[in-house]
Amino acid sequence: MKKLAIGVIGAGRIGKLHTDNLLRMPNAQVKIIADPYYDKAWVESRQLKATKNVDDVFSDKEIDAVLILSPSTLHAEQIIKAAHARKHIFCEKPIALDPALIREALDAVAQEGVKLQIGFNRRFDPNFKRLRQAVVTKKIGDLHLVKIASRDPAPPPLEYVKSSGGIFLDMTIHDFDMVRFLSGSEVDEVFATGAVLIDPKIGKAGDVDTAMTTLKLKNGALASIDNSRKAVYGYDQRIEVFGSKGSVEALNNTETRTVFTSAEGVISDRPLDFFLERYLNSYLSEIEEFIRAVVEDVDPPVCGFDGLAATLIGLAAKKSFELNQPVKVEQQ
Amino acid sequence: MKKLAIGVIGAGRIGKLHTDNLLRMPNAQVKIIADPYYDKAWVESRQLKATKNVDDVFSDKEIDAVLILSPSTLHAEQIIKAAHARKHIFCEKPIALDPALIREALDAVAQEGVKLQIGFNRRFDPNFKRLRQAVVTKKIGDLHLVKIASRDPAPPPLEYVKSSGGIFLDMTIHDFDMVRFLSGSEVDEVFATGAVLIDPKIGKAGDVDTAMTTLKLKNGALASIDNSRKAVYGYDQRIEVFGSKGSVEALNNTETRTVFTSAEGVISDRPLDFFLERYLNSYLSEIEEFIRAVVEDVDPPVCGFDGLAATLIGLAAKKSFELNQPVKVEQQ
Amino acid sequence: MKKLAIGVIGAGRIGKLHTDNLLRMPNAQVKIIADPYYDKAWVESRQLKATKNVDDVFSDKEIDAVLILSPSTLHAEQIIKAAHARKHIFCEKPIALDPALIREALDAVAQEGVKLQIGFNRRFDPNFKRLRQAVVTKKIGDLHLVKIASRDPAPPPLEYVKSSGGIFLDMTIHDFDMVRFLSGSEVDEVFATGAVLIDPKIGKAGDVDTAMTTLKLKNGALASIDNSRKAVYGYDQRIEVFGSKGSVEALNNTETRTVFTSAEGVISDRPLDFFLERYLNSYLSEIEEFIRAVVEDVDPPVCGFDGLAATLIGLAAKKSFELNQPVKVEQQ
Amino acid sequence: MKKLAIGVIGAGRIGKLHTDNLLRMPNAQVKIIADPYYDKAWVESRQLKATKNVDDVFSDKEIDAVLILSPSTLHAEQIIKAAHARKHIFCEKPIALDPALIREALDAVAQEGVKLQIGFNRRFDPNFKRLRQAVVTKKIGDLHLVKIASRDPAPPPLEYVKSSGGIFLDMTIHDFDMVRFLSGSEVDEVFATGAVLIDPKIGKAGDVDTAMTTLKLKNGALASIDNSRKAVYGYDQRIEVFGSKGSVEALNNTETRTVFTSAEGVISDRPLDFFLERYLNSYLSEIEEFIRAVVEDVDPPVCGFDGLAATLIGLAAKKSFELNQPVKVEQQ
Repeated sequence: MKKLAIGVIGAGRIGKLHTDNLLRMPNAQVKIIADPYYDKAWVESRQLKATKNVDDVFSDKEIDAVLILSPSTLHAEQIIKAAHARKHIFCEKPIALDPALIREALDAVAQEGVKLQIGFNRRFDPNFKRLRQAVVTKKIGDLHLVKIASRDPAPPPLEYVKSSGGIFLDMTIHDFDMVRFLSGSEVDEVFATGAVLIDPKIGKAGDVDTAMTTLKLKNGALASIDNSRKAVYGYDQRIEVFGSKGSVEALNNTETRTVFTSAEGVISDRPLDFFLERYLNSYLSEIEEFIRAVVEDVDPPVCGFDGLAATLIGLAAKKSFELNQPVKVEQQ
Repeated sequence: MKKLAIGVIGAGRIGKLHTDNLLRMPNAQVKIIADPYYDKAWVESRQLKATKNVDDVFSDKEIDAVLILSPSTLHAEQIIKAAHARKHIFCEKPIALDPALIREALDAVAQEGVKLQIGFNRRFDPNFKRLRQAVVTKKIGDLHLVKIASRDPAPPPLEYVKSSGGIFLDMTIHDFDMVRFLSGSEVDEVFATGAVLIDPKIGKAGDVDTAMTTLKLKNGALASIDNSRKAVYGYDQRIEVFGSKGSVEALNNTETRTVFTSAEGVISDRPLDFFLERYLNSYLSEIEEFIRAVVEDVDPPVCGFDGLAATLIGLAAKKSFELNQPVKVEQQ
Repeated sequence: MKKLAIGVIGAGRIGKLHTDNLLRMPNAQVKIIADPYYDKAWVESRQLKATKNVDDVFSDKEIDAVLILSPSTLHAEQIIKAAHARKHIFCEKPIALDPALIREALDAVAQEGVKLQIGFNRRFDPNFKRLRQAVVTKKIGDLHLVKIASRDPAPPPLEYVKSSGGIFLDMTIHDFDMVRFLSGSEVDEVFATGAVLIDPKIGKAGDVDTAMTTLKLKNGALASIDNSRKAVYGYDQRIEVFGSKGSVEALNNTETRTVFTSAEGVISDRPLDFFLERYLNSYLSEIEEFIRAVVEDVDPPVCGFDGLAATLIGLAAKKSFELNQPVKVEQQ
Repeated sequence: MKKLAIGVIGAGRIGKLHTDNLLRMPNAQVKIIADPYYDKAWVESRQLKATKNVDDVFSDKEIDAVLILSPSTLHAEQIIKAAHARKHIFCEKPIALDPALIREALDAVAQEGVKLQIGFNRRFDPNFKRLRQAVVTKKIGDLHLVKIASRDPAPPPLEYVKSSGGIFLDMTIHDFDMVRFLSGSEVDEVFATGAVLIDPKIGKAGDVDTAMTTLKLKNGALASIDNSRKAVYGYDQRIEVFGSKGSVEALNNTETRTVFTSAEGVISDRPLDFFLERYLNSYLSEIEEFIRAVVEDVDPPVCGFDGLAATLIGLAAKKSFELNQPVKVEQQ
C-alpha cells in the first residue's frame, strides 16, 4: 500500500496533535512539517523533517496533501497556494472571517479540482454522530428542536478575544455547524443576545462572554444555543434533538464511570475539562476520514461550503446582536 | 384549633383535586362547593354541601376563604366579588388576559385587605424549590442562565386552543412565572419565535404548537424556554439554572427508579405523563401554604402581582412573535 | 358503603403511621386504638377512642379487623386471641421467632377462618413490584440471580439488638421475604457470613453488623444479600434480578431529581434516610390491600405462611453463620 | 533514548493487540514475534520479523524483554526459559493451574533476578483504579464490602471450557485478583456456589455457568462475586467498594453518552460487548507500565506472587464448590 505523503503546516498545539495522530496511521506519512517557530525538541523526538518556510511544502512535488493548522488569518491564502500546487487540503476552521475571501479560496479549490475538508471535528464525535443518525433514520420522527449547551471551562486570553471576531464567529461557529450537521438544513434567520457576566474586560474588548442564540431553520425546525466562556465544572458540550417521535440527548463525557455515594450525595465525574481530551477521538477520525477521501477519491465529509455556511451564520448572529433584531442569513 | 371555613368555586377536575386535598387537612373545612354543573355522585361520596349558585359562597358569613377554580374567564370578576365579601382568595392562573382587568381585581383585593394567592403550583415542586434555593444561597454563584424545557404530552382540544389566548399566554405563562421565581428578577425584554410542526389545525386556529422564547432579565441574566405541545414520551419538565459557580438541573420525575438492561439498551422510566400526577405534591403544598398564610396572617407565597407580571410577559411574547421583534415587557 | 370497623393494637411510631393512613381511607374507620402507653395528645388530635386494655379490642363485637402493631414478642398471642374473636388480622412481622409458636398462631387463624396478612410492606413498593413483574412476565427471561443490597442508615439501639434475634432474623428477614417474593420460589439452602465492622458493642451483644448471605433457590436460581447496619449516606435499598434475557435493577429513591454540577463533580441526591419516608407508599398500599381483601373476601397478598417461611430462612441463616456451613432451610 | 528490544511470544488475538500497542510506543521496539502458526499477512502489514520457533526469542542476545502471550499451558515453561535467558517477562494470566509449577516459575524468576509482570489488565482500568484510590485514601473510610458483578456476553467454546480449569480458575480468577487489588488484603476463606442455568453442555463438561462466591478477607472485610457466562446485554463489569464513610461504584462503560427518550422509556447505551474494547486502555497501560518498570528498574505493578495468589483462591473456590463447604485459602 502506498502511503499518502503529507505536509503539515503549523506545529502548535493542534499541529502536534494531528501529527501524532498521523504517525500512527498505516496509510499516511508525514513528509515535512512547516512552522516559522517549530519546537525543535519535539520535531526530533518524532524524527520529523521540519522547515521554517511554508513554501517548502507547496513546492514539494511528492506531497499529496496538506494539513493547514496555522493561525486562522493565514488559512485562506494557504488554501489558495495549496490548491494551485495541486495538494489536497485539510484546513482548520475558520477559512476566513470575510466571506469574499472564503469564496476566493473555494474558487481556487474548485478550479484546481483538489479536495478540501474543514476541521469541524465535532461532527466526528461518537455522541453527536449518534444524534445525526437519529435524525437521518427518523428515529425521533420529524425534527422539531435542536438545543445546544456549549460552554468553555475558561475564557481564552484577552488578546485572542480581540482578534477572534467575537464569540459568535469564534465559539458559536462550532455550534452553528452542528445545527446544520444535525438538522441537515440551512439556517434561515438568527436572533442573538449576549451579556458580559464573567469578565468586564471581555466587554471592554467589545465582546460578550455569555450568549443565547435562536435559529429558524429552512426546514421549519427551531434551534437554540447557549454559550458561556466559563463553566467552572469543565467543558460542557450537551446537545438535544427533539422530534415527533422522541428526543436524543448527548450528555457530557467523563474520565470514569465511577460514582461516589457519601453523606454529601451521589457524586459522579464532572465533564472533561480540556477540549483536546474531550474530542480526542473526533480529531483522530476527521483525519482518518480525510485520508480515506483522498485515497479512495471520494468527497470529504466536511466540505469548503460548510466552512462558508457556518461563517455566514456567525456574521448574521453578530449583526443580530448589534442590532437587537433577528437577521436573515445570507444564502450562498 | 379552629378550622378555616372554605368555599370552593368550581368542581371540575382541578376543583375535585383541591377539594380532596382539603379534606385531608386538619386545619381546613370545606363548607360548600359551588358549580352550576356539579357532579352529584362525587359531592355525595365526599359528604359535601353543594350549590349551583356561586353567590351562595360569597354571602355565607361563616366562610373565611375561597378557592376560585372556575373557568379562567370568570376569575377576575369572582376575585372582585370575593374581595368585597371579605374572603381570602386562592385563584388558579390566569387572573385574566387583560391587564386592565387584572389591575381592577388586584385593586379590589388591596382595598379590602384580603389575601390573594395565585395558583402557580410549580413553585411548590420539590425539584424547582431546590433550584430556587441554589440561586438564593448562591450555591451556583451569580445566576447567568435559566433554561427551561416545558413540553406537554399532547395538545389540548382545539376549542381550548382558540380561547386560551395562545401558547404564550396559556402554556409558556407557567414558564415565565418560573423564570421570575427562580431568578428573583423581573424580565426586561422578550423575543419569541414559534412554529406549527405538530398539527396544522393549531396553525389555522391562529396559534403555534412549538415555541422558543429568549428573555433578558433585569438582573442581567439570560433565559430561554422551549415549548412543545406534544412530547410523545410524556410531560417533559426540565429546568437548569447556570451560574458562576456551577449549575443545578431538575430532571423529570418518573414512576419508579428501576432500570431494565437488555440487548436493546439500558432503559429507565419515561417522564410521568399527566400533569396532576407530576405536580401532585405541589398542588397539595400550595393549598397548605395558602391556609397557613391565612391562619398565621402572613403574606401568601405567590401574590396577585405575580399573576399580573406573568401575564405581561406573556403579552410581550405574543407581540414579539407577531412582530418578529424583541419586545420590552411592560413594567407595573 | 359500609366502612370496615378497625381496632388498632399498638400506638407507637408504626401504630401512628398506620392509623393516620387509615384515617384517610374512605372505606375504613378506626373504632379504637389500644396501647398501655398511648400518647394522649396524639389520640386527641385524631379524635380517636383509646384504651390501655388490648382485650377491649377483641371483645368489641362491632370490630371487623385488627392491626397488630405491638412489640413483636406479643404478636403470636394476639393473633390467636384475635382469631378466636373472629377478627381479620393484619400483623407486623415477625409473627414470632419460634416456628412452633408461629404454627400455633397460623393454626388458630385457619381454624377460625379469618384472614391474616403479614406486614412485609416492601412487596408493595413500586420499584420492587416492577421487578416482580419483570420476573413473572419473563421480561428478563428465566431468573438466574437475585442480588440485594440492604443497608440501614444507622444501627438500632443496643437493647433492641439484644432482643431482636440477631441481624438475620431482624434485618435480613425482609430481604429473605423479598427473595421469595421476587423469585416466586422457596429457598433450599443458605450460607451466611458476618463480621463486626461498625460497632464492637454489637459484637459483644452476640450479633454481627455486616453480613453477606448466599441462597440457593428451589427453582435453581442463586441469590445474594449484603447487609450493613450503617450506610452513612442513607437507607440503601437496591435490588437486581438477572436472567436469560436481561436484568432489572431498582435504584434508590431520592428526595428530588435535581443534579448539581460544580468543580467538585456532578452531585445528585443521596438515598432517603428514613425507612418510613422511603416506604411511605408501601405502608399505605399494604393496608389498602388488606382492607380490600377483607371487604371483597379474597386472599390477602401476604399470607401467614409467608411470615413462617421468612423466619425459617432466618433461622437457617443464623445457624449457618454459627456453624460456618451451608444449612438447608426447613420446609413447611 | 534507547528503545527496549522486545520479543513477543504468541501472535493470536491478544498477541496482535499487544504488538499493535507496542508499535505505537516511542520507547519500545518489537524485535521479533514468535508463533508456530503466525499470520503472515498481518506480520507483513506491520513489517515485523517473525519466527515459528519460540527459542529464537530466548537465544537473541539483543532482546531485553519478552511478552508471553501463548496458550496458558505453556506459560510456566516459557517463563522459566525466559528467566534463564535473562529476559524481563510480561506474562498473561494464569501462570499455571498447578501451584507447584507456578512456584517453580517464580523461583526461576527470583534466581535470575529478572522482572515478571502478570497480565491482570483490569487493575489498569481507569474505573477500577479510581476504586482502589478510594480505598487507599480512605475516601470511603474503612473497607467493609467488595461487591463484583462480572458477567461475560457469551460462553466460550465448549472445548475451551473443558481445558480452562473451570469457571473459578478461568473467569472468576480475574475477580479474585480484583478483590486482592482493591482491598489490599489477602483472602482468608472462600465459599463458592454455582449452577448450570445457561447451557446444559457446560454442565456435562463438568463446569457451571453461573456462580456466586463469598470471600472473607484477612483484614476483616467481606466480598462477593457473581459470575454469569452469558449476559445478553453485553460485558457486565461492575464493582462496588463500601466502607464506613461511603461507597464507590464503577458502572459499565458504553459506546456513547447519548440517551434516547421515547414512548418506550429513556434508553441509554448498553455495556460494551467485547472485552478487548472494554479494556482497550488497560491493555495499553499495563504494557506501558511494564516497559517503564524495566527501563526505570522498578518493581512491576503486578508481580508473580499476584499470579500465584489468585490461582490459590481459584483452587480454594473450586474445592469449596465441590465440597459445598467454605474452604481456607492456602497462604504462600
